[in-house]
Amino acid sequence: MSAVPFTESDPFSPIRYGYSLKEMLYSHKGPFGEIAIADHEYFGRMLILDGVVQLTERDEHYYHEMLAHVPLFTHPKPEDILIIGGGDGGTLREVLKHDTVRLATLAEIDGGVIEVAQRFLPTLASGFSDPRAHVEITDGAKHVATMRDAYDIILVDCTDPVGPALSLFSEKFFADACAALRAGGIFVAQTESLHFHLDFVRDVQSKLGRHFAFADVYTVPIATYAGNWWTFSIGSKSTNPRKAGFRRSRSMPAKYYAPDVHKGAFLPPSLCRRLLLDGQQSPPAH
Amino acid sequence: MSAVPFTESDPFSPIRYGYSLKEMLYSHKGPFGEIAIADHEYFGRMLILDGVVQLTERDEHYYHEMLAHVPLFTHPKPEDILIIGGGDGGTLREVLKHDTVRLATLAEIDGGVIEVAQRFLPTLASGFSDPRAHVEITDGAKHVATMRDAYDIILVDCTDPVGPALSLFSEKFFADACAALRAGGIFVAQTESLHFHLDFVRDVQSKLGRHFAFADVYTVPIATYAGNWWTFSIGSKSTNPRKAGFRRSRSMPAKYYAPDVHKGAFLPPSLCRRLLLDGQQSPPAH
Repeated sequence: MSAVPFTESDPFSPIRYGYSLKEMLYSHKGPFGEIAIADHEYFGRMLILDGVVQLTERDEHYYHEMLAHVPLFTHPKPEDILIIGGGDGGTLREVLKHDTVRLATLAEIDGGVIEVAQRFLPTLASGFSDPRAHVEITDGAKHVATMRDAYDIILVDCTDPVGPALSLFSEKFFADACAALRAGGIFVAQTESLHFHLDFVRDVQSKLGRHFAFADVYTVPIATYAGNWWTFSIGSKSTNPRKAGFRRSRSMPAKYYAPDVHKGAFLPPSLCRRLLLDGQQSPPAH
Repeated sequence: MSAVPFTESDPFSPIRYGYSLKEMLYSHKGPFGEIAIADHEYFGRMLILDGVVQLTERDEHYYHEMLAHVPLFTHPKPEDILIIGGGDGGTLREVLKHDTVRLATLAEIDGGVIEVAQRFLPTLASGFSDPRAHVEITDGAKHVATMRDAYDIILVDCTDPVGPALSLFSEKFFADACAALRAGGIFVAQTESLHFHLDFVRDVQSKLGRHFAFADVYTVPIATYAGNWWTFSIGSKSTNPRKAGFRRSRSMPAKYYAPDVHKGAFLPPSLCRRLLLDGQQSPPAH
């Protein structure tokens, strides 16, 4: 064991997560912050950005499968996909499992993350060599602002909403994303913990509700994200993602995603009402 | 802020949880371990046993509501209830919300926990003054072994399965609990994190399956338990808890529990199959 017991210093969490790392393999401070790779006995290889664990080999599939497959299986024929962020390649890997996909564009602001993933996280970065994958090293918010009717799905796979990621949650960005999507398009963003960031989730929901026919929240349990009970906020132009028809076969290899997991991941209506609509930070007292 | 930044030293978790405590209010080493009470800016008052956070005022309702209401609403007429552990009173408080309940017996091995809860956690300990509440300071496993056809519901609200709590997960205990339950009886135990303790959950499921007509798992997101995605293992003699008829009214005050939350808390069948039955620690690789 190394002498680096605590890696997690997430300013958005009232709990600090600490890990006894086996070995720190790589660390480099670039223009967008520090990128680090470590090995952990239980979690396997970890990607750590600015001291916050972004993924581990052991549980990354929960996040990446749910970010990609819920919208892609809700859409009847997802062909052109935009991933903003996601430089580790995990979301791209899942998107490319859909044989309807013609082109998956990954707009990552920090090319260093892609290089590190290709070197240290081969099980995540496998999709970069797929001919349908197209990488642009660019600011995702600026990219989206230039596009019209270009994508069937837009996925925001970003860090905590601070610094470079902050522009991905502005009112303008949601309007631009909606315009960049074709008819029937679907937007999903990771939106932090339902325990710790309820006000943030509510804000995103209300913005999505102004641009999309359906705005909703689904969750996934991720052990290494502080607060767990992780949320994805989804905006859909025409299909209710809760009542998706699942017209295409879903017999692709997945560790967590399945039709019943998809349905079960949406918050029960009573929780939507109490947590998201009641306009209060905490539910009513007993 | 005090100089006690980290309280969590759970030996069952590959992540250490750390809290910046506002104040340590009480700490005493008794015959069953150390009992401590602290205040935290975000979580409110916390109960900490042997350095492991057992509950916080902010999120205790997730655990206590789901431990109590899922079995009590599955049972058509729960009258006599046994709670093993639960000295903080939270489970008792929820059980007593059901007006079918005639007697709620709490068998707690450490009377010190009850005293501390009554002094520092009044919102949890409110049920101790109810005339339907009966407290026995005793080893719950030994108590259960002496009872026959005595209870409609048995709830195991214990610490991590080590030391005093270990006897609550033996084959003999499950057989004794089944015999102590009347026809139609229901058993529930907290069984740790589905992320970190999958083998333990599987072991409990297989033991329950040998004694009850239905053995199943439901989960609840608890921010302060390492691994979150917390499991309750349920054994039921005659009613399938997934398909409970909900014959009684469920319009009681609850912050998290609701009929749709009850149904949604059970693991989707595909996850039961893949996580609990496939006989492997990790799901298959991509």
